[in-house]
Amino acid sequence: MRFEVLILGSSSATPIYGRHPTAQLINVNEQLYLVDCGEGTQVQLIKYGIRSNRIKHIFISHLHGDHYLGLIGLISSMHLVGRKDELHVYGPPPLKEIIDLHFLHSQTVLRYPLHIHPTQDLTMEPIFENDNLTVSSFPLDHRIACTGFRFDERKRMPTINRDKTDALGVPTEYLPLIKRGNDYTAPDGRIHRWQDLTLAPPAPRSYAYCSDTVMTERYLPFIQQVDLLYHEATFLHDMVDRAEETFHTTALQAGQIAENVQARKLLIGHYSARYKELKPLLEESKSVFFNTDLALEGNWYSV
Amino acid sequence: MRFEVLILGSSSATPIYGRHPTAQLINVNEQLYLVDCGEGTQVQLIKYGIRSNRIKHIFISHLHGDHYLGLIGLISSMHLVGRKDELHVYGPPPLKEIIDLHFLHSQTVLRYPLHIHPTQDLTMEPIFENDNLTVSSFPLDHRIACTGFRFDERKRMPTINRDKTDALGVPTEYLPLIKRGNDYTAPDGRIHRWQDLTLAPPAPRSYAYCSDTVMTERYLPFIQQVDLLYHEATFLHDMVDRAEETFHTTALQAGQIAENVQARKLLIGHYSARYKELKPLLEESKSVFFNTDLALEGNWYSV
Repeated sequence: MRFEVLILGSSSATPIYGRHPTAQLINVNEQLYLVDCGEGTQVQLIKYGIRSNRIKHIFISHLHGDHYLGLIGLISSMHLVGRKDELHVYGPPPLKEIIDLHFLHSQTVLRYPLHIHPTQDLTMEPIFENDNLTVSSFPLDHRIACTGFRFDERKRMPTINRDKTDALGVPTEYLPLIKRGNDYTAPDGRIHRWQDLTLAPPAPRSYAYCSDTVMTERYLPFIQQVDLLYHEATFLHDMVDRAEETFHTTALQAGQIAENVQARKLLIGHYSARYKELKPLLEESKSVFFNTDLALEGNWYSV
Repeated sequence: MRFEVLILGSSSATPIYGRHPTAQLINVNEQLYLVDCGEGTQVQLIKYGIRSNRIKHIFISHLHGDHYLGLIGLISSMHLVGRKDELHVYGPPPLKEIIDLHFLHSQTVLRYPLHIHPTQDLTMEPIFENDNLTVSSFPLDHRIACTGFRFDERKRMPTINRDKTDALGVPTEYLPLIKRGNDYTAPDGRIHRWQDLTLAPPAPRSYAYCSDTVMTERYLPFIQQVDLLYHEATFLHDMVDRAEETFHTTALQAGQIAENVQARKLLIGHYSARYKELKPLLEESKSVFFNTDLALEGNWYSV
């Protein structure tokens, strides 16, 4: 099953050096989810060949402009290209008021249902689930209310080990029962354990998105052992005072967090405009957590 | 004196084919004015090498997203790069409420003074002037309240004809008086008319910006005989019904308007996403008003 992240924007507040404000597209089994939606996200989607109407759910971490100012334009463009499907947007409570005020004054009545779901930043909470995954929001520690999002693949059923069931001549109608954990009693009376007739499914994968935050202990329980951790790394560590003052993180701290929560892989992004070259950020994070990668726009990263 | 228009965005509602939503930069004697500010305008400014902090005045025609959704991001980026100078924004009354709501929830206190001036769409009205020009808003006829803007160069004083004043030996201290319309009496008692001692200044130039509008008689008095008329031309004329239904104009109508008001030159833009190729729009307008040009992003047009 596909589970990948496309970086649409990797810059912190100012778009510069061809980098754009934050947005990511998550593909889980060919269903598309958008996480944050900085200014220009709709143009980035076009650039990377994504039809925006394939997106059914948009998750907004917080109400700093570089994380949501592309949302109203995207919602409007979906309307203009004739969208009929529901769109669900999840974000801090005032988001609804902001969107409503725009559409009131632009006198737009959307031709598709838009549902805006308020998030909270006190505890971890599942906010969406379907057959493939669960999405939860969890609190981060930023200058204003801000949540991260965790995408957890749902546990899949084991697959039948056809070599074994064929050899035993198990009738087809028994296979779904075996998959669901029932042992098989053969005509000769011998019992075959379901574990021996199936192949274990791959372990469910998880992706955590840590948008803007200062480094604290507070959110570490929510991102334990994720397969892929995206964490902001706005500054190099020589700017740690500035990072704390502005409720951001350094590349070194991002590495430390990944190490601490035993993530399998770390992706850093949200680069300050002061860094034209990103290699020093990568090296700093790698010095504590080797399996770090830079979030680069247009790249897909497997979870 | 420089008086030029840089096209930053030429698309109608949807950004497509590398075209962006509406925005224009006007350079009058090295002072920069922004007219409309669609999503992504700040990135377009960077692309064309314009330092946004040189802009002191921004004029917003109406509150459809493709004409103002880049404004909050631009205002925020000016703040982040340390702007200290005042910024003046002119637009429909609800614009202030929209901007205030964003900055309330993003908890941003701008480090520079932002003044938001409401416009009205009932009559023509001067909304800004300085030594170089007067800017007036005037009503257009769109689905929601919408104004155009007219930039009128102020009448300049004549320049001294040095050949003549030198030949007559006019003392330097008399020259400013002559420029202001006083005749010169020579020591021999002969009176020299100021008109004979000066060169007439070039006629004041004018630029009119007609943002989204259906074609009506109503706004024609406000754009008479402008040197450069920018007029939206969203559709080809075979779509005139659709144009009227959506309160837009066809390329043919834009040409007719330019002809009717005796503009010197016409610039068309705000192209619908249905036109990848723009040549048919240009040709249609040229069939009634030959001196038409396409508004193309990155191009400067002299007024």
